[in-house]
Amino acid sequence: MFKPAALALATASLVFAGNAIAETAQTERHNVEATTIAEGLSFPWGIAFLPNGDALITEKSGTLRRVGMNGVIGEAITNVPDVVYKSQGGLLDVAIDPNFADNNWVYLSYSEADPAGGEGNSTAVARGKLIGNNLQEVEVIFRGAPKYKSGAHFGSRLVFSPEGYLFVTLGDRYSAMDDAQTLDNHHGKVVRIWPDGSVPEDNPFAGKEDALPEIWSYGHRNVQGAAIHPDSGALWTVEHGPKGGDEINIPKAGANYGWPIATYGVDYDNSIISEKTHVEGTVQPHYYWVPSIATSNMIFYTGDEFPAWQGDVLVAALKTMKVARLDLEGDRVMHEEDLFVDLVNQRIRDIEQGPDGAIYLVTDDRNGKLIRISNADE
Amino acid sequence: MFKPAALALATASLVFAGNAIAETAQTERHNVEATTIAEGLSFPWGIAFLPNGDALITEKSGTLRRVGMNGVIGEAITNVPDVVYKSQGGLLDVAIDPNFADNNWVYLSYSEADPAGGEGNSTAVARGKLIGNNLQEVEVIFRGAPKYKSGAHFGSRLVFSPEGYLFVTLGDRYSAMDDAQTLDNHHGKVVRIWPDGSVPEDNPFAGKEDALPEIWSYGHRNVQGAAIHPDSGALWTVEHGPKGGDEINIPKAGANYGWPIATYGVDYDNSIISEKTHVEGTVQPHYYWVPSIATSNMIFYTGDEFPAWQGDVLVAALKTMKVARLDLEGDRVMHEEDLFVDLVNQRIRDIEQGPDGAIYLVTDDRNGKLIRISNADE
Repeated sequence: MFKPAALALATASLVFAGNAIAETAQTERHNVEATTIAEGLSFPWGIAFLPNGDALITEKSGTLRRVGMNGVIGEAITNVPDVVYKSQGGLLDVAIDPNFADNNWVYLSYSEADPAGGEGNSTAVARGKLIGNNLQEVEVIFRGAPKYKSGAHFGSRLVFSPEGYLFVTLGDRYSAMDDAQTLDNHHGKVVRIWPDGSVPEDNPFAGKEDALPEIWSYGHRNVQGAAIHPDSGALWTVEHGPKGGDEINIPKAGANYGWPIATYGVDYDNSIISEKTHVEGTVQPHYYWVPSIATSNMIFYTGDEFPAWQGDVLVAALKTMKVARLDLEGDRVMHEEDLFVDLVNQRIRDIEQGPDGAIYLVTDDRNGKLIRISNADE
Repeated sequence: MFKPAALALATASLVFAGNAIAETAQTERHNVEATTIAEGLSFPWGIAFLPNGDALITEKSGTLRRVGMNGVIGEAITNVPDVVYKSQGGLLDVAIDPNFADNNWVYLSYSEADPAGGEGNSTAVARGKLIGNNLQEVEVIFRGAPKYKSGAHFGSRLVFSPEGYLFVTLGDRYSAMDDAQTLDNHHGKVVRIWPDGSVPEDNPFAGKEDALPEIWSYGHRNVQGAAIHPDSGALWTVEHGPKGGDEINIPKAGANYGWPIATYGVDYDNSIISEKTHVEGTVQPHYYWVPSIATSNMIFYTGDEFPAWQGDVLVAALKTMKVARLDLEGDRVMHEEDLFVDLVNQRIRDIEQGPDGAIYLVTDDRNGKLIRISNADE
């Protein structure tokens, strides 16, 4: 369905930075301007930019829309897979193929009902060719196992490695958290597949008994953010901890990131959940937050719009409605800054760098916004 | 002179944790109790523990006192060198010789007047043998050059490396900041000497023309904190940035840490002081704070009192009246926690680990306190 608020913006005269609402703020090294490009999105979850500069945006209820940088929100793209829209589940991330210009493949992650009719669900990934406003040749390329009755912790982000692998980040389904430590399921895993869903032969558990071959790393909780380091090509992820203990990890093939046997998470009253932050055989986080900032997605910023942020990690946050900027030297975090506090004022569900080098956010709200953050230095 | 408040504590019945004021607080991983061991110290600056468990504490005005863990503050130790007690200058750090039990050497850093009678001053280091309440065989083992008319940025901390070198951290004297980039002076340097003041032959600039041979590293601003990493044996330092940009560095022999040509410092109104955070030939900080937390000293915590903090860096702060705990994995900072906020409520000038594994602080106040932080976990 069309959104009235979006329709109001969908006129030729209301181009971006024109009548759109813009607010400015200072940060340590840049002045920034936040412009609401579009609003009226229903709990938008993922953003992917098309070669022409339009954004594809998912709405959790199950719609995928094309949104122009002039604020025009398109009709729902047809033939998107059915989703289980419940609690944290729904239509989740969207990514476009590295060769999209040639093949038109669009990838979607979502919570999928049990095709066999059971009560369970799981995170799945489908792809389809975007032709006009229609997805064609839609196929499910990954289906999390097992189907499990829960409305929580689906992950998920979709990122392509420089080699063309597709990483899919998953969640532990909350009440199945112990599964994150065993390899016979996809709960609490990062998986690596080829874009057609086939399993790379050099995956760490490929060919091993009692292990699902798609698994790349395990011992995760709810990995809702992922990005590829622009220099090293390594996968970085960000996951929620238990009421605290949000983690950045650099998942290595076959490694165990400790959840739920090792965690820095602390309870709401600040008491310790687990005495164990270090368990032999598990990898320490690369960086962590206590209390939780409620991480969603992350990017490495590489654009020209904000020269002083090049190479930095930007981690978006839900509850704290901010973006944490991590200044890196090599892989090492040497500084953290809170960006956009009191500027966005909504839970931030996704962050992406646009083709113009500006930073784009969507907010987790019934009246969700697409916001562009641009440079306001004098 | 004796302090009345201290005298009141100096009775047998008022042993520590007895009638002394204690307050508790929660942190992420430990409950802590702060006990005021002694008060009435006049702007205490440095703490060093003697083998018998007493602390030697400097007061900036120029007195050195022995303070018992029962709260008894001793008379001023005699024969301490004269100091220039002005603005940031005075009697500064105190350290005891690694072989103190055999040789009784105590080392003091302080702002020293020009022996030639000029108006300038500089940071100097003297040592003397502590016999009873008297320093004997006092000798100046290091004298910062040049003598310079300023009341600011003297450094300084004294730390012994595992090999027995003595590191002395210095300041740029504020108005002489440009000197930090040249090697013909001690402004903005870390120096390395033998405990008798002689220069190690393998110092990076020993034997070089136009360079002072004591210099270990340069391009520093005001290095008021230093500690040796318990595993690597490497020197770590913490320095104030310019109105922001406090830095942790791991000074390597001969390296340039960039001040004042490269800094992350920002001005009070949040504007940028220098566009340059990276300058070729200078080393990036290991970790930095913007805005400044106003760092004073740092330790690596290695005690049994707080098992969850073992291996962590604790950085004390003046303006923000807190201790920043940095959780390390190897050298990498993976988390920062603010400790003791609203618990100490005075500017913290020094932090040391006691022989009992508790953490000891002195506060930068006319009525300065010695505070013990101990474990209050149930």
